[in-house]
Amino acid sequence: MRFRPVRGMRDLLPDEARGLIRLFDLSRRLASLYGYEEVILPTIESYELFAAKSGGEIKERMYTFTDLGGRKVVLRPEATASVARIVASKMLGYPKPLRLFYIVNLFRYDEPQKGRYREFWQAGYELIGSGRALADAELIEMLSRFMEMAGLRDHRFKVGHVGVHRALMGIFKVPEHEQDDVLGFIDRDQWDEAMKILSSYPAELRDVLTGLASVKGGMDKVFEEAWEQLSRYEPALRELERLREILRYAVMLGVPRERLFIDMGFARGLAYYTGVIFECYSHLRVALAGGGRYDKLISLFGGPDMPATGFAIGLDRVHLAQVEAGVSYEDRTFKALVVLAGEDERVVRLAGEALRALRGKMGARAVLDVSARSIKRAFSYASAQGYDYVVVVGRREAEKGVVSVKNMKTGVQVEVPVEELPERLPD
Amino acid sequence: MRFRPVRGMRDLLPDEARGLIRLFDLSRRLASLYGYEEVILPTIESYELFAAKSGGEIKERMYTFTDLGGRKVVLRPEATASVARIVASKMLGYPKPLRLFYIVNLFRYDEPQKGRYREFWQAGYELIGSGRALADAELIEMLSRFMEMAGLRDHRFKVGHVGVHRALMGIFKVPEHEQDDVLGFIDRDQWDEAMKILSSYPAELRDVLTGLASVKGGMDKVFEEAWEQLSRYEPALRELERLREILRYAVMLGVPRERLFIDMGFARGLAYYTGVIFECYSHLRVALAGGGRYDKLISLFGGPDMPATGFAIGLDRVHLAQVEAGVSYEDRTFKALVVLAGEDERVVRLAGEALRALRGKMGARAVLDVSARSIKRAFSYASAQGYDYVVVVGRREAEKGVVSVKNMKTGVQVEVPVEELPERLPD
Repeated sequence: MRFRPVRGMRDLLPDEARGLIRLFDLSRRLASLYGYEEVILPTIESYELFAAKSGGEIKERMYTFTDLGGRKVVLRPEATASVARIVASKMLGYPKPLRLFYIVNLFRYDEPQKGRYREFWQAGYELIGSGRALADAELIEMLSRFMEMAGLRDHRFKVGHVGVHRALMGIFKVPEHEQDDVLGFIDRDQWDEAMKILSSYPAELRDVLTGLASVKGGMDKVFEEAWEQLSRYEPALRELERLREILRYAVMLGVPRERLFIDMGFARGLAYYTGVIFECYSHLRVALAGGGRYDKLISLFGGPDMPATGFAIGLDRVHLAQVEAGVSYEDRTFKALVVLAGEDERVVRLAGEALRALRGKMGARAVLDVSARSIKRAFSYASAQGYDYVVVVGRREAEKGVVSVKNMKTGVQVEVPVEELPERLPD
Repeated sequence: MRFRPVRGMRDLLPDEARGLIRLFDLSRRLASLYGYEEVILPTIESYELFAAKSGGEIKERMYTFTDLGGRKVVLRPEATASVARIVASKMLGYPKPLRLFYIVNLFRYDEPQKGRYREFWQAGYELIGSGRALADAELIEMLSRFMEMAGLRDHRFKVGHVGVHRALMGIFKVPEHEQDDVLGFIDRDQWDEAMKILSSYPAELRDVLTGLASVKGGMDKVFEEAWEQLSRYEPALRELERLREILRYAVMLGVPRERLFIDMGFARGLAYYTGVIFECYSHLRVALAGGGRYDKLISLFGGPDMPATGFAIGLDRVHLAQVEAGVSYEDRTFKALVVLAGEDERVVRLAGEALRALRGKMGARAVLDVSARSIKRAFSYASAQGYDYVVVVGRREAEKGVVSVKNMKTGVQVEVPVEELPERLPD
């Protein structure tokens, strides 16, 4: 009987897993450098948590089921809702702003294709309790830094601001749930559908939204054009000014200005965004990361009004981009194979000492050859597997308390007292 | 509207998450030192994969549901089956023995209680392709090393060997699925049920199994007693001799003999074990880790006959044991809060430089104060939050290209050129 992974699920063997695990480390390191504290979120959440604000597309593609206690639950399709839930219910007493970080696997029932899997990995960063432009700028700079550290120097940002659209629709008294739907359709580039929702409002609203959508490009150009189009709509102008402030700060904090591409017709599928939104791209056509401001989500989940902003990195896609860009990491860990010649007590004890010496002081990868192959075959195995050293422990050696060490690159073989292994090996 | 986590699920806030994340790191480090390569396993598996050999208790408590494609799937209740599936279908060409490692969250619909959660974390190590005693010994020594590194010096092993029971039952022609059931009942200490299954076989079998169950203690005592009881059952004696060999090697490789407690009446709930089984305990009454040999699982999943042995660590429980034992880690990362006095371009740019200098060369945790609070309140915030330094960047400083640094422990405040920050800070 043969078994296969469930459709859309992946088995990541060591060579593939390694790239993703390095990105776990990298995102964790970034969190530490910027003061974001890691939380561990539950994989299973209540259906209601996502029914509220996740956007129709995600809702239809969730892994939903009834647990043995009769509860309607889902495998989390995204993580910001969980963070907002936790902040609203358990972290109100913490000093603000809160900086939170997580690494999660998420589940969406999408059609599997390159860079899109039914179980995929994200690293997320949320900055909660500050409504200031500097907070958004910190996140954009942090994401840029992540891409640098990941070796993706050619990354660029697509930035928009749904606060502008919401302000415009607010002027014409479009209720929030209709605003969510309009932005959802704009995200999927279904302008006809978006305009249909607005058909009962003055044509002026549709005209200004449509006009705005064509405003895109670098910072100076965009703000000038958008300012002109929005000049009669004071609340929208204030939002536009906020976007300019965020991007100016991001540049001051270190993001090269030419990486920022602004698109005033840009929206994102999650319905909870209220302000700036952004995505990060490299040469791949799919977004590697994305985020934005969500000032109303925490109060929606029963907390007080609390501004918040954040982003998440699609780690599978970043890894894909790294592979296509030829980014590689050097593995500098020493690898030593410890081979037994004979298996009586003194030999095995001495091998145990050699393994402890190699692992303990040197932090070397020291592997005991548990197979019963000949010394000769052990050497050719070690050579094929890229070991730096082979350490042979035999009866003759055990009597003298030494081990025989062969440097696989130079071919030189010497006898070394086991306690001197850590000093003698690296050269 | 208030939302809560689903029953049995946990929100791990930073203080709780930190302990678990350190154990992720520690288990990953152990894998690297011993040459175990990490794989990433899918969370969702087919129901059939676990129906085959997981043991009745686990099967009833799985999170089972039907996905949108109509497939009966489960959230993995354990990980060894996935590893065996992958080895059987995708890793036959890899050089043996294979050493594989994983960190996984698992799902079982148990009654939540201390140390038992419906979603819990394991680190697992599997050594595949060697049937030798030395392979089992490597794993026991490795687990002992993990406990040492985790600060649990008082750990001890409970060791058994279902190969002895299977050999005995084999002599009396008990079929494998009945053997599985008997061992399952013995695991749950339901001897009556176990004996009921064997009621149609000669009383001698029940007698020898029952007698064997009372044999427990240190190595010398146990082997002598067990040898006597099994002297008429050659195949069982061979298995007993194998157990002795494994434990002698484990001691030679460095496990203190007094940590090994042998229990010949010990069984484990998973039906796939064929040889040595072991669990590791500290002062907590629940097992912190467990494993054993499973020589038939890979062929069951369509692979060739391939011996295998492994163990998994219950990371939540290890963390619980660490907390109760008062194990603590020192966090040596420098923490610096960078405070803006004014927000014009030169000030923010200089702050950006200071942040990069602190994070880049020093690897310090450098946090930008994005709130608009006063300098004075920033200082008291930094003090309360345990920051080592506060770096103030203001207009006056920006003109000179310096920042003002206060050491929060000594109270000393100095002006430092931003490019000298990394050298000047640590003292």
